Amino acid sequence: MARATPFIHDVPAAEALVAWLEACERGGCPERLPTVTLALDEAIGRVTAEPVWAPRSSPPFDAAAMDGVAVRASDTVAASETSPVTLPPSAFDVVDTGDPLPAGRDAVVMREQVHELEGDIELRAAAAPYQHVRSIGEDVSAAELLLPAGRRLRPVDVAAAGAAGVTAVVVRRAPRVAVVPTGDELRPLGTELRQGELPDTNSLMLAGQVREAGCEAARHEIVPDEPALIVDAVRDAAHDADLVVVIAGSSAGRDDHTAAVVAESGLLAVHGVAVKPGHPVVLGVVDATPVLGAPGYPVSAALTFDIFAAPLLARLEGTAPPEMPSAPARLARKLSSAMGSDDWVRVRLGRVRGELVATPLPRGAGVLTSLVRADGLLVVPAGLEGHHAGELVDVRLLRSIGEIEGTIVATGSHDLVLDLAASMLRERDPRLTLASSNVGSLGGLTALRDGLCHVAGSHLLDPDTGDYTLPWIERLLPGRDIAVVRLVHRDQGLIVAPGNPLAVRGIDDLAAGRLRYVNRQRGAGTRALLDLELARRAIDPATVEGYAREEHTHLAVAAAVAAGRADCGLGVLAAARAFGLDFLPVAREPYDLVLERDSLEDPLIEPLWELLADPGFAEHVRELGGYDPSEMGRRVA
Amino acid sequence: MARATPFIHDVPAAEALVAWLEACERGGCPERLPTVTLALDEAIGRVTAEPVWAPRSSPPFDAAAMDGVAVRASDTVAASETSPVTLPPSAFDVVDTGDPLPAGRDAVVMREQVHELEGDIELRAAAAPYQHVRSIGEDVSAAELLLPAGRRLRPVDVAAAGAAGVTAVVVRRAPRVAVVPTGDELRPLGTELRQGELPDTNSLMLAGQVREAGCEAARHEIVPDEPALIVDAVRDAAHDADLVVVIAGSSAGRDDHTAAVVAESGLLAVHGVAVKPGHPVVLGVVDATPVLGAPGYPVSAALTFDIFAAPLLARLEGTAPPEMPSAPARLARKLSSAMGSDDWVRVRLGRVRGELVATPLPRGAGVLTSLVRADGLLVVPAGLEGHHAGELVDVRLLRSIGEIEGTIVATGSHDLVLDLAASMLRERDPRLTLASSNVGSLGGLTALRDGLCHVAGSHLLDPDTGDYTLPWIERLLPGRDIAVVRLVHRDQGLIVAPGNPLAVRGIDDLAAGRLRYVNRQRGAGTRALLDLELARRAIDPATVEGYAREEHTHLAVAAAVAAGRADCGLGVLAAARAFGLDFLPVAREPYDLVLERDSLEDPLIEPLWELLADPGFAEHVRELGGYDPSEMGRRVA
Repeated sequence: MARATPFIHDVPAAEALVAWLEACERGGCPERLPTVTLALDEAIGRVTAEPVWAPRSSPPFDAAAMDGVAVRASDTVAASETSPVTLPPSAFDVVDTGDPLPAGRDAVVMREQVHELEGDIELRAAAAPYQHVRSIGEDVSAAELLLPAGRRLRPVDVAAAGAAGVTAVVVRRAPRVAVVPTGDELRPLGTELRQGELPDTNSLMLAGQVREAGCEAARHEIVPDEPALIVDAVRDAAHDADLVVVIAGSSAGRDDHTAAVVAESGLLAVHGVAVKPGHPVVLGVVDATPVLGAPGYPVSAALTFDIFAAPLLARLEGTAPPEMPSAPARLARKLSSAMGSDDWVRVRLGRVRGELVATPLPRGAGVLTSLVRADGLLVVPAGLEGHHAGELVDVRLLRSIGEIEGTIVATGSHDLVLDLAASMLRERDPRLTLASSNVGSLGGLTALRDGLCHVAGSHLLDPDTGDYTLPWIERLLPGRDIAVVRLVHRDQGLIVAPGNPLAVRGIDDLAAGRLRYVNRQRGAGTRALLDLELARRAIDPATVEGYAREEHTHLAVAAAVAAGRADCGLGVLAAARAFGLDFLPVAREPYDLVLERDSLEDPLIEPLWELLADPGFAEHVRELGGYDPSEMGRRVA
Repeated sequence: MARATPFIHDVPAAEALVAWLEACERGGCPERLPTVTLALDEAIGRVTAEPVWAPRSSPPFDAAAMDGVAVRASDTVAASETSPVTLPPSAFDVVDTGDPLPAGRDAVVMREQVHELEGDIELRAAAAPYQHVRSIGEDVSAAELLLPAGRRLRPVDVAAAGAAGVTAVVVRRAPRVAVVPTGDELRPLGTELRQGELPDTNSLMLAGQVREAGCEAARHEIVPDEPALIVDAVRDAAHDADLVVVIAGSSAGRDDHTAAVVAESGLLAVHGVAVKPGHPVVLGVVDATPVLGAPGYPVSAALTFDIFAAPLLARLEGTAPPEMPSAPARLARKLSSAMGSDDWVRVRLGRVRGELVATPLPRGAGVLTSLVRADGLLVVPAGLEGHHAGELVDVRLLRSIGEIEGTIVATGSHDLVLDLAASMLRERDPRLTLASSNVGSLGGLTALRDGLCHVAGSHLLDPDTGDYTLPWIERLLPGRDIAVVRLVHRDQGLIVAPGNPLAVRGIDDLAAGRLRYVNRQRGAGTRALLDLELARRAIDPATVEGYAREEHTHLAVAAAVAAGRADCGLGVLAAARAFGLDFLPVAREPYDLVLERDSLEDPLIEPLWELLADPGFAEHVRELGGYDPSEMGRRVA
């Protein structure tokens, strides 16, 4: 199959950016935006185009720095505790802080040290010349450099400029960015979707990113996958914009026209960068306007803006691109990365036992919620194959350290009650986050063993004893001082299509090979439950169709059944209900929170215990269906 | 003198905030703002009032994750390199990334692995079920918790919500803040000022801070220092606002009415907090609206907003207040602090020889430029008397570490050529900052010795030899490998009023006692020059009026002369020119840059050498007047 676009190569991000900026130069793009002169209040957020020098001093006069009386210091030289000096009204003036120093006065005596005597005042200490006087120019001297060129103006900057007599400043006008969504399958947000259609969320996101970068965004109409229409749209957008962002069509498929459009109507500088996610980026110039072709996968689109658009926009304004703070963190699990591309991995962060711990989130370019949930970004450079578990890595922070330190890190089995708890904890105290990573019960206990989480959620069945969780703790965490707190009992069962059209009766039916099953991943408690139930019936897992197809949450299993991709899967009732599916109970099991015993008193986790003790929360849990919260919060070990 | 307001006490900031929030409760203020339902694009920047659950899965269907062909995996089981499988057109569909998986297909084969055969296709490997398929719900499953309550919405958040079928979200409406400037001496910005009048820059600044916090700001007219008018203005503002900020009048002077106004018309919770600068804060409630009385000193006003208003506004929105990142830094010099108050010290930061170094800026509450120039804030807690030089302190960062690391730290003598260089370096590369701390030549050499700066600016005269700088380096930095680069020769002279009305002829005239002199601080090269000139003439410094009055820069000396506060002072011609003053040359001296020899090759400092070699820069320097740049950039040691 022939490639629709001429070439795709993998340029490192920094090189790609340089190639783009060079192409901009060749393509006649301005290196800096035009300047405008703005009043101070309109200039906040804009970037100075030239240095600002103080036209006059601030304060513009000598002023009292205290409430008191202004005197001439030489009149007070003789004053002491034992021989006070008395000054007549002609020799002093009452002043308040900020008042100009009256002519002939050169010092201020604080009100507390002034004794009134029928119109005169008495001083019991000499005043030094210029004591408690705020000198002219204390803040700024006339002709001093107030603000350099290239400074993004903050409220304090314009206030200081105003105090020094500046009334307007020369700044770069705000960059204008046109956002052009393309794709036959796209429909405007809010439209009723038909099969195969998707809402246009990328242009919403990119326009938002543009505005957050302090620029003006123009969202254009959705353009179908027609090269001629895309050419028209890009040319039209380029006319008024300092940057055009074309969304989707940047790859090399049949419907990917951005690279060809840019190559034909302008200069194609780069097609394909060594960044994951974000690889099929198009960088070029059309009609003297830079064009960024962003991939349609939302994580790629968002990161592409940060990596390429933000530095270009900063250059146009003559300032430095924004920068994320970073912090060292210990990696919660092994992270493999393909050589040859920088890998931008989204991570959750939390402080566990004194150390920042980074847990990688799902890495798909389409998993936008990974960016929503991320506390940081870990860039694995192109030259590395990845990182070991426990390795110290540098993470760019998307949230403040304070927020991150207010995060209870819960790792292990997925349960909707934890989602509910997260939401209610946050409503009670917005500084508190309960972050669940769904790695299955076994993964949670292992993370707890390795000091990578505060709490492990587990409902892990021991096939030998039929007991839950406790045998595994003895096995995995021998000799450790561990506490176990009951969260809930919950019903596990087979989730089937509404009305159970295939008349599934139970686990036995999986043997027949007539049902397409959707499984949970290895290490998940629900997987262990299935395996035990199969073993009890001597059913060979290999004969269960779909046994190899793994999902990571109850909801994903239910979604697979709802989509008709599977006929049944094991999960909780609440997941079945969420999708309007039927549910055949298989077992009632305890779901527990496992933690180091000393964490029971951790003030960070305290609000969780309060929530578990709250009858209102238990009631909410009961409403989910299939949950019995009667032992909620009970110490079971 | 009696106090105009009932009481003033020093409450720690945290306690003051709690007292205020309690008063808000008693005063009937709402704890949370009302909710509004906003379309996704309008909701960016607002805070969710309730959790957002996914109405549907995203993606809403199984989709191709690659460009290629969709097949049924079971049709391909037999395929291998040696015995390919051929599929007729009825058994496959060509798909592009993102296309829905056609009915009956359960796997995608990448285009690169498909061989076309006259309408049929040939596969040389079996396809695993669901390979290269993006599952329904891969991003979000229906009913999953998408966003918690209390989340400030970013573009990526609303895009993820939109993809999961959300079209509008319930958020808190933006807080409204009324900013009410008070003061008889205030005039609107841009007004021609008469003696004793000041421009109203505080309301500009505070309104800007309000908007930066994501709130709506209403700037009210300036209210004179009349209690009745202030009561009216506060009541009027309280009507429409969620917070009223009254600027100035928060202290306890004759014209300070805020506390009394709040006490009379509502609830006065706190008057005076143990924070410097910022001490005379008023916190209260009027007509069920919180009122913050901010001090009129601009640094106090700005910090008061951050310390008190920002947390209150965040609470009204149901989220956590913003937080500055912090970093450990070594303190460049001893810092004394009065016990009993948290002291918010503005510092410049730079990375010198691998370590972050914090240099305190001027600490006056009126020195707004200290906040303009600050890279960070160092809070000395109320219980400490200060910090030693070289102590490791925790600094809240106002700029990113990247910006800070792009800072050349120049400490020492003040010279306008350094200001000019700072401005031009920045214009060439906005990531580069040249930060000068003016501590005099001696202070600069000491800082260099202690590893606290990259470059020391010096023109320090050795009275024994009459040589500049080099003898001091031998004395202060023995055995160190030091380089000295000539910046300029410059004329030092007596700065006098225009037309030299007192007919000053030179240094000799200082002996007579008839001239009011304005001096530079100890350790300044200009001070050393004066001392030498006086010594040569056997003039006793004690006989020079104003000898004890110290300013820290040439411009400040010129400003003092321009204001008529002094008759003359020693400084450079450019400073005299900046104020339109006359100048009587006294000496021509070399001004040098002193640095560790290995810093000559430091890439950070490289652009400075390039600038010094640039004839265009030399020309600019010549235009300042009184400078000879002919040896600029020459290594003199």
